[in-house]
Amino acid sequence: MYQNRLEALRGKMKEHTLSQVLVTDAASIFYLTGRWIEAGERLLVLLVKEEGKPCLFINELFPEKESEELDFVWLKDTSDAIGMLSEHLEKGKTTGVDKNWPSGFLIGLMKTMGTSDVENSSILLDQIRAVKDEEEKKLMRAASKLNDEAMHMLIESLEENMSELEAEDLLKKIYFDLGAEGFSFTPIIAFDKNGANPHHENGGRLLKHGDAVILDIGCRKNNYCSDMTRTIFFGEAGEKEKEVFETVLEANKKAISLVKPGARFSDIDRAARSVIEEKGYGPYFTHRTGHSIGIEVHETGDVSSANDSLLEPGMIFSVEPGIYLEGKFGVRIEDLVLVTEDGCEVLNSYPKELYLK
Amino acid sequence: MYQNRLEALRGKMKEHTLSQVLVTDAASIFYLTGRWIEAGERLLVLLVKEEGKPCLFINELFPEKESEELDFVWLKDTSDAIGMLSEHLEKGKTTGVDKNWPSGFLIGLMKTMGTSDVENSSILLDQIRAVKDEEEKKLMRAASKLNDEAMHMLIESLEENMSELEAEDLLKKIYFDLGAEGFSFTPIIAFDKNGANPHHENGGRLLKHGDAVILDIGCRKNNYCSDMTRTIFFGEAGEKEKEVFETVLEANKKAISLVKPGARFSDIDRAARSVIEEKGYGPYFTHRTGHSIGIEVHETGDVSSANDSLLEPGMIFSVEPGIYLEGKFGVRIEDLVLVTEDGCEVLNSYPKELYLK
Repeated sequence: MYQNRLEALRGKMKEHTLSQVLVTDAASIFYLTGRWIEAGERLLVLLVKEEGKPCLFINELFPEKESEELDFVWLKDTSDAIGMLSEHLEKGKTTGVDKNWPSGFLIGLMKTMGTSDVENSSILLDQIRAVKDEEEKKLMRAASKLNDEAMHMLIESLEENMSELEAEDLLKKIYFDLGAEGFSFTPIIAFDKNGANPHHENGGRLLKHGDAVILDIGCRKNNYCSDMTRTIFFGEAGEKEKEVFETVLEANKKAISLVKPGARFSDIDRAARSVIEEKGYGPYFTHRTGHSIGIEVHETGDVSSANDSLLEPGMIFSVEPGIYLEGKFGVRIEDLVLVTEDGCEVLNSYPKELYLK
Repeated sequence: MYQNRLEALRGKMKEHTLSQVLVTDAASIFYLTGRWIEAGERLLVLLVKEEGKPCLFINELFPEKESEELDFVWLKDTSDAIGMLSEHLEKGKTTGVDKNWPSGFLIGLMKTMGTSDVENSSILLDQIRAVKDEEEKKLMRAASKLNDEAMHMLIESLEENMSELEAEDLLKKIYFDLGAEGFSFTPIIAFDKNGANPHHENGGRLLKHGDAVILDIGCRKNNYCSDMTRTIFFGEAGEKEKEVFETVLEANKKAISLVKPGARFSDIDRAARSVIEEKGYGPYFTHRTGHSIGIEVHETGDVSSANDSLLEPGMIFSVEPGIYLEGKFGVRIEDLVLVTEDGCEVLNSYPKELYLK
């Protein structure tokens, strides 16, 4: 149990006048307890009240050890899990629940308790988790360092006539050998025209001389995520390719140069977008500039025109502008940045300048 | 839109006196509309009422074509999606929702409508989907046929000193080459002692002479799932291994021989378990005998002692007894069976007799 994180949650509960909260997202339970539990369709709830030990409702199938800081309610598949949970809740008080808790559980709980006095309380932990503490910063740096090494090994191994899927398999082995727990998301490895789709699914396309190659990869290490994109050129790059590449690189650098406490997420998006618009490629930058990241690869906090929240020290997010020319090629360059007291620290160190392999 | 499936749902709605249902599970929306849409965190709802066209609430980011049989409400990321949905619902009537709809949406809907008159209505489509129609039977046969071929190719390719993860990568390629959409679940490829854990995660263990090899594999084809397990022996099998293998095989065959309309799921579980108990291995068969399968690899309908539901023609489920000897090895043999009018059809044809590779 991370007592400081628990106290932060209780502080937010006070602000929101919530005296009991059901934390049900695996990532949030991990954040508070240090326990990563995949419960699948089974009920898993960490009940947090204003004081006292939090209480974990968990199926006995999961091999968790009891500890002093936490009460346990062990459930069986035949248990009335919702009934047992409701006995620990105070009637007449609003109950907070995570936004992704399956409705089936919530409906059961409301019927058992005879009340629909419930709130979506995800925002409490989302706001706390947005600002990484020192331990988390170390873990995020370690995951990105590992990703730098993986990017190096992957690019070294690319060969003519290798397919996107073969490269994906290779990356999986690289992460395994480096001690990562696995992908933090299905990597995008896009050759040539395929790179023009920012959400490309890897396929059988073979790598050929002259291809632009987008490598959008990330791993999990100690349950924290990395995420980086590099675009390289296989053998040669045409003038158009070079121009697009340099534009995206400038957008990436410009946006990163503005990251500091007090700037807005939307400012960062605007900075990247302006560079690309000035070069006439505005319509071809078709997605937001980035997303927050931590235990989950996408956390609350878009780097987009719609998010006017202020950056705070400890926030970590991606800066990943791109230009996508349908039928031709695409370029995306992505780094993770950590907001510091007076600017930012870029978590990736793999070179991002124009590179012909 | 599958009109017959829609009418079946409306029949169930009448039984349950529900006049409006929000279908939100991707698999159920696919079942009704033939459209597979991965909406991630965005709202996706198919609203079905007693009559009239169903209405799909969908973000404009998803490239779905409109059709005559369906009304569309296109949402933007900035839309008040819950507000728009609530305008299409009748107040004063109970609203059914799928059990996995995120609570955040449900809480928003209840607040907007000022009512908590909601029901978990998943059971309606779960019951309908449990009985496969002729088109689905064809698709399930096709997926299992492809899985037979993949099993053959995988076993042919196993070599001494290949790791479990290498075999997994190979299987991924095999499925890709055969035209499958991918795994229906992360395959279990367990060598030697690793096979004693029925939920083994593939690792770096290398294949050695004398290993028992569990191959629990399945693919998706046209959005329907296959799932089959074979246990083979690499080079040689000891007497104990042979005895355990023959026991599991007998349990598998005995259970399958009892599959017919009117039998209970629990009867099938009992049949498999009895064979294993008679040989003294009861405590080492540590899981249920099987699970229903279709668009999802695990659908409602366990083959377990707790499920006394009757088998009906058209149901498809796995029969997968196993014996797990910790520190030694494991054996599991799994087939999918389709309940017919007077017995069953086994969907896998890959041989399951004792095989030394």
